[in-house]
Amino acid sequence: MNYLNNPKQLLTTFVTGMKNILILGAGRSSTVLIDYLITNAANENWKVAVGDISLEQAEMKTQKRKHSRAFLFQGENAAQRLEEIAKAEIVVSMLPPALHFSVAKDCIKLKKHLVTASYASEEIRGLHVLAKEAGVMLVNETGLDPGIDHMSAMKVIDGIRKKGGELTAFYSWCGGLVAPESNDNPWGYKFSWNPRNVILAGQGTAQYIRNGKYKYLPYQHLFSRAEEVHVDGWGDFEAYANRDSLSYRSIYGIDKIPTMLRGTLRMPGFCKAWNALVKLGMTDDTWKIKNPGTLSYAAIVEAFLPDGSGPVIKRAAEFLHEKENSEVMKKLEWTGIFTEEIIPMDEASPAQILQQLLEKKWKLSPGDKDLVVMQHRFEYRLAGENYRIVSSMGTKGIDEINTAMARTVGLPAAIIVKQILLGKIRRTGVFLPVTSDFYEPVLTELAEAGIVFKEKEEKIG
Amino acid sequence: MNYLNNPKQLLTTFVTGMKNILILGAGRSSTVLIDYLITNAANENWKVAVGDISLEQAEMKTQKRKHSRAFLFQGENAAQRLEEIAKAEIVVSMLPPALHFSVAKDCIKLKKHLVTASYASEEIRGLHVLAKEAGVMLVNETGLDPGIDHMSAMKVIDGIRKKGGELTAFYSWCGGLVAPESNDNPWGYKFSWNPRNVILAGQGTAQYIRNGKYKYLPYQHLFSRAEEVHVDGWGDFEAYANRDSLSYRSIYGIDKIPTMLRGTLRMPGFCKAWNALVKLGMTDDTWKIKNPGTLSYAAIVEAFLPDGSGPVIKRAAEFLHEKENSEVMKKLEWTGIFTEEIIPMDEASPAQILQQLLEKKWKLSPGDKDLVVMQHRFEYRLAGENYRIVSSMGTKGIDEINTAMARTVGLPAAIIVKQILLGKIRRTGVFLPVTSDFYEPVLTELAEAGIVFKEKEEKIG
Repeated sequence: MNYLNNPKQLLTTFVTGMKNILILGAGRSSTVLIDYLITNAANENWKVAVGDISLEQAEMKTQKRKHSRAFLFQGENAAQRLEEIAKAEIVVSMLPPALHFSVAKDCIKLKKHLVTASYASEEIRGLHVLAKEAGVMLVNETGLDPGIDHMSAMKVIDGIRKKGGELTAFYSWCGGLVAPESNDNPWGYKFSWNPRNVILAGQGTAQYIRNGKYKYLPYQHLFSRAEEVHVDGWGDFEAYANRDSLSYRSIYGIDKIPTMLRGTLRMPGFCKAWNALVKLGMTDDTWKIKNPGTLSYAAIVEAFLPDGSGPVIKRAAEFLHEKENSEVMKKLEWTGIFTEEIIPMDEASPAQILQQLLEKKWKLSPGDKDLVVMQHRFEYRLAGENYRIVSSMGTKGIDEINTAMARTVGLPAAIIVKQILLGKIRRTGVFLPVTSDFYEPVLTELAEAGIVFKEKEEKIG
Repeated sequence: MNYLNNPKQLLTTFVTGMKNILILGAGRSSTVLIDYLITNAANENWKVAVGDISLEQAEMKTQKRKHSRAFLFQGENAAQRLEEIAKAEIVVSMLPPALHFSVAKDCIKLKKHLVTASYASEEIRGLHVLAKEAGVMLVNETGLDPGIDHMSAMKVIDGIRKKGGELTAFYSWCGGLVAPESNDNPWGYKFSWNPRNVILAGQGTAQYIRNGKYKYLPYQHLFSRAEEVHVDGWGDFEAYANRDSLSYRSIYGIDKIPTMLRGTLRMPGFCKAWNALVKLGMTDDTWKIKNPGTLSYAAIVEAFLPDGSGPVIKRAAEFLHEKENSEVMKKLEWTGIFTEEIIPMDEASPAQILQQLLEKKWKLSPGDKDLVVMQHRFEYRLAGENYRIVSSMGTKGIDEINTAMARTVGLPAAIIVKQILLGKIRRTGVFLPVTSDFYEPVLTELAEAGIVFKEKEEKIG
């Protein structure tokens, strides 16, 4: 880090040893991140500034604790962005992904490190050389998925490599779900993060490779080809393929692996029912219904069905090749899409209408616990024998605010911030946390916080 | 038109009476338009300038005939655009739709009329007041579909209105096909216009209204819900719904009509087979296969299929619930998608790969005749009785250059240009040709050219 461009900060830092952390964005994924950094601020001699477009939200997260400052932050206000970044040693951006690039450029300009929990976009990757020249690191994908998945997988992959094994297959699944004791709906699901991302999940075409053959799975087939996954201690799930499994081959250094598949976990039965919504057209976000405020939910479903007469629910069941009282139809009916209630929206895509319905239905109630489950399956060959390692993690939230999602997204990012400020991670450029300087301290401290990967290894056929 | 901003042109026009027509774009839809205007140039005292990004193409279309000038035209070159438009009395833009808006703004600036055969975009509609103030008209949708469809339908609708009838249903179908005598492939189809538009046809969600109920038909179901349409004298076809039927209600002045559906005609059997390509994922243009140059067509199909072993064609038939020798599978096999040939492309979407295959297969051969078929079906109530009018038109091309498509797109646009230059259409603003000043002269002259609508009326239930 180059302090010469800010003599006042240089002085403060060297005289008091105090370090400023700037957190941009105080949404639901930031709760635990902010708490961790403020809790450690006294010991480590940090000051934590938290900016959000809602001052109230920022204050709710800092709770006016010592060593913290909440402020109103407008992501598009370039002057404010530069002013705040100039005061910090390190910046954590939890803003919507579209804003990361501006923050990243400012960080390079002002020679500050940056940590985000979001996917490293092509644009961000393109800053590698500039970041190197500026002597700073931009670390992305430091949350749960992406984040913990990379770190926990790379630890095992490095271990296999070290003993001379050759990786032949790698599967990785992760799900943000609801804990069994808080599950009171037929889908076995509640929102623990951005609802819009859940509604639109899987749109595009999933690409992966299995037994050396490329596989393309278009959205209209994605949820009908879900596969069963058992996670020891946590039960049975089903998994649909993530859009991008292929690009992680080069990031993990396993370019020639014949089987690589990343996927998302849901409770058994979820995917078949979600596929029914896809088939109806209810998850489509590419066009707007012009007059939803004059129509009922049932009228929207009716509009998607072939011509006919009779109750909408009956005709929907026929269209979907379901019995009227099947598990799928029960799940659909529970959402409210067959009611004659008028839609309280002026212009909306089918996906927005569905989201608005589900935000009421899939809301974590006070005291509800969410659940995060992750599992990797590695197959490798060593000295003529084949082995399988299954590495699994599950963790429940404390309540509807301190969710497992907020903990698993926020803790690894916070630990990486700490390691950078302690000078234990020293790099320049754009990185994902796929090397031991990242994963060793993060996985160790996560385990101390009860977020533990259990490994099981066996010889296979 | 205001000539005061160009005194030299004013002088030429008033002294000689000569009028300059500027045609931008000399692609396959412009052939007949250009020919018509040059053929009439001597009589009418016109001069026709034709600009295209390929000078060769422009010259091929003008054939250095008298009263014509071909020139190299770059759509993005604002200076050249202004210079050429300044010299003209009227501009016809046959450029790609994205370029119409720049041309339209220039026409307003220089106070010139504009005619296009393309859909009037929201942007273009927004120029209405500016065009009015400038004293010029921008006329859009003057080709076949959109174009002849509007004119032939509005003539009937105005007739029904005049006698006091109330329109209760309006269906309108159009197809650009291949004539039976030139049909030598199992699809009954060859490209007579932009292949990319054919490959991507129907993407989005078709919206129409039937019996007072809105209907939304997502792409994944569109081709499986095709309906049969019989056209007297031309045989049986099948029709899939166009994306937009609803917005034409207000344009036609029939806002409250309970049934309105516009659709596209194909030969029987086409839609079921095309639906198989959709189901496989072969028409998807939203993502790129990164390494098609290392893969065969069969490998792409295989990547779309569920895991399995055995010949790709057999597994595709299973996936599609088809017998291996069914009509659908014969059509698919004919395209070449099951061959082991390596794809000669570096990076391409599945849709681009399919287009590249079909451009070779669905090409009009020398002497081939195409076919254009249009049919409207009107239902109306008058004095307590219900009536149906069916209005049909079919026309074949002369050869693979003078296609029915080029004639039906080019002639109405050319006739409208003539009527404007003769001072018979006098308007200011942005228009579609839905009124009698447009449709009377166009339909009369089309009939003289053999493009005739035959009407059949009957009393119904």
